[in-house]
Amino acid sequence: MKPEAYQVWSGSVLSQVEQALDAWVPVDSPAELGEAMRYGVLDGGKRLRALLVMAAAEATGALALPAGHDAALRGACAVELIHAYSLVHDDLPCMDNDVLRRGKPTVHVRYGEARAMLAGDAMQALAFEVLTPDVAAAGEGATVMPAVQARLCRLLAQAAGQAGMAGGQAIDLASVGTVLDEHALRHMHSLKTGALLRASVQMGAACGSLAPATPAWQALTDYAEAMGLAFQIVDDVLDATQPSDTLGKTAGKDADANKPTYVSLLGLDGARAEAARLLDDALSALVASGLDTAACAPLRALAERIVHRDH
Amino acid sequence: MKPEAYQVWSGSVLSQVEQALDAWVPVDSPAELGEAMRYGVLDGGKRLRALLVMAAAEATGALALPAGHDAALRGACAVELIHAYSLVHDDLPCMDNDVLRRGKPTVHVRYGEARAMLAGDAMQALAFEVLTPDVAAAGEGATVMPAVQARLCRLLAQAAGQAGMAGGQAIDLASVGTVLDEHALRHMHSLKTGALLRASVQMGAACGSLAPATPAWQALTDYAEAMGLAFQIVDDVLDATQPSDTLGKTAGKDADANKPTYVSLLGLDGARAEAARLLDDALSALVASGLDTAACAPLRALAERIVHRDH
Repeated sequence: MKPEAYQVWSGSVLSQVEQALDAWVPVDSPAELGEAMRYGVLDGGKRLRALLVMAAAEATGALALPAGHDAALRGACAVELIHAYSLVHDDLPCMDNDVLRRGKPTVHVRYGEARAMLAGDAMQALAFEVLTPDVAAAGEGATVMPAVQARLCRLLAQAAGQAGMAGGQAIDLASVGTVLDEHALRHMHSLKTGALLRASVQMGAACGSLAPATPAWQALTDYAEAMGLAFQIVDDVLDATQPSDTLGKTAGKDADANKPTYVSLLGLDGARAEAARLLDDALSALVASGLDTAACAPLRALAERIVHRDH
Repeated sequence: MKPEAYQVWSGSVLSQVEQALDAWVPVDSPAELGEAMRYGVLDGGKRLRALLVMAAAEATGALALPAGHDAALRGACAVELIHAYSLVHDDLPCMDNDVLRRGKPTVHVRYGEARAMLAGDAMQALAFEVLTPDVAAAGEGATVMPAVQARLCRLLAQAAGQAGMAGGQAIDLASVGTVLDEHALRHMHSLKTGALLRASVQMGAACGSLAPATPAWQALTDYAEAMGLAFQIVDDVLDATQPSDTLGKTAGKDADANKPTYVSLLGLDGARAEAARLLDDALSALVASGLDTAACAPLRALAERIVHRDH
């Protein structure tokens, strides 16, 4: 995919996701709760998870099915809501106690701790509400099939919970000041960030008719696991090499907090080499998937951008 | 329903719910997260919401349908997981800062603030995971239809989020030290506790074939709204009249925190009279529902117990 084509594709996805989130995250909500939710999720971040959902939906032909695009857009927004809520909670004083996120004061700095926690809670609930539009209320237009709704909820709930993101955060917390080896560090990240990235790809695929037991599903999962790990390694490299104003968050925090990172384990060069190896793995998995090569272009472009980004 | 019959019915439901939660809330989870989740949800509380789900499923004939009992039991456990997570978060220092719950130290006192917050987050995710069992993986036995799964997720997500429980908690927080009138207090409670109680009844009914637009659905919703309000009024009466050791939580906290209560607004006698009036409304709604009178016996018994309880 040429850079211009990627810009057109990703620009279109990002604009759809921002519009949909703007419509679904409430303006008028009790006691500024909606404002805190919107502050936490709108106009923020690279939307990598949303892009993965839409790219996987495109790769598997899901977007051509009735209501396939609606399902994928809902999946993309739901994953972003889960990711955004996890950042809001992660930034709280009882967790990482971070005051800067995406170049702005964090939600609890702006809205107070209690409201930030409730906003995160409500964002998680909203993710599942977005995934389950009322078929009866939708009227004439095609709407997301209940079987797809249930499948998306299952994938997202598993990825967000104790065996996924929340479990990874718990390990991360418990690991402060301890020495994790590479195996333990990989396990932590495979839950903390990997599970939701994997779910993003699987949710996109689940918007179509691709079944979990198929080789193509497994190949997409391999792609997603390689990218999840590469994403974290590159994160650690950037954290060690870039200033805070480029990252939009406080740089060097993990090293300062004595948390293990891939850079502290593998060194800068070793970490970069591992990321390059994982990119090869991800691209090979797409070839092995047997999915249409042209339709996989956005997934390929995303993999390259995950590894070669500078913030 | 005679007291002995109610004991048999509720004893059976409670034992099924405890067993199911014990099976679904993980023992082995990263970094004690599962232990904190189990501490927060097992062996706890009156399970009023679970009882309402099962009673509504019985009233609407849902339990006689294939997989209807499985759907209702999942709904009952999911609602209890949401309720339990909300208590874990509500007890945190940045919220109510409570150290005692159901006669035990609260989750953050036992497991630390960060792990308590993560356990709550993971309990919310688990609720939606419990509601969406994998049809393909279930093999031979009947499993919950995807359409029912999606409907249960929708009802629960709406009730838990910004227009329900989380929104009510936000209003509650913002109202400390202010003077709410009866209308504003009712609105706060209709979100904070009412939404999840209403969802409990609706989820039980949604396990069968009762459609939202029907008079019976509306009558059950009227029942649930009357009971939700009565529940809170009785809570305030007990908070003002019973010692902490009977309640299993710190009594008189709301009054001490200068929060408005029904007792402060209506007086003790006025609050008791209002609860009695709401019980009449709830029982009348069941008659008006047109549902089988015998099948409604558990819903009637629950209404009476909600109003006449002493803790």
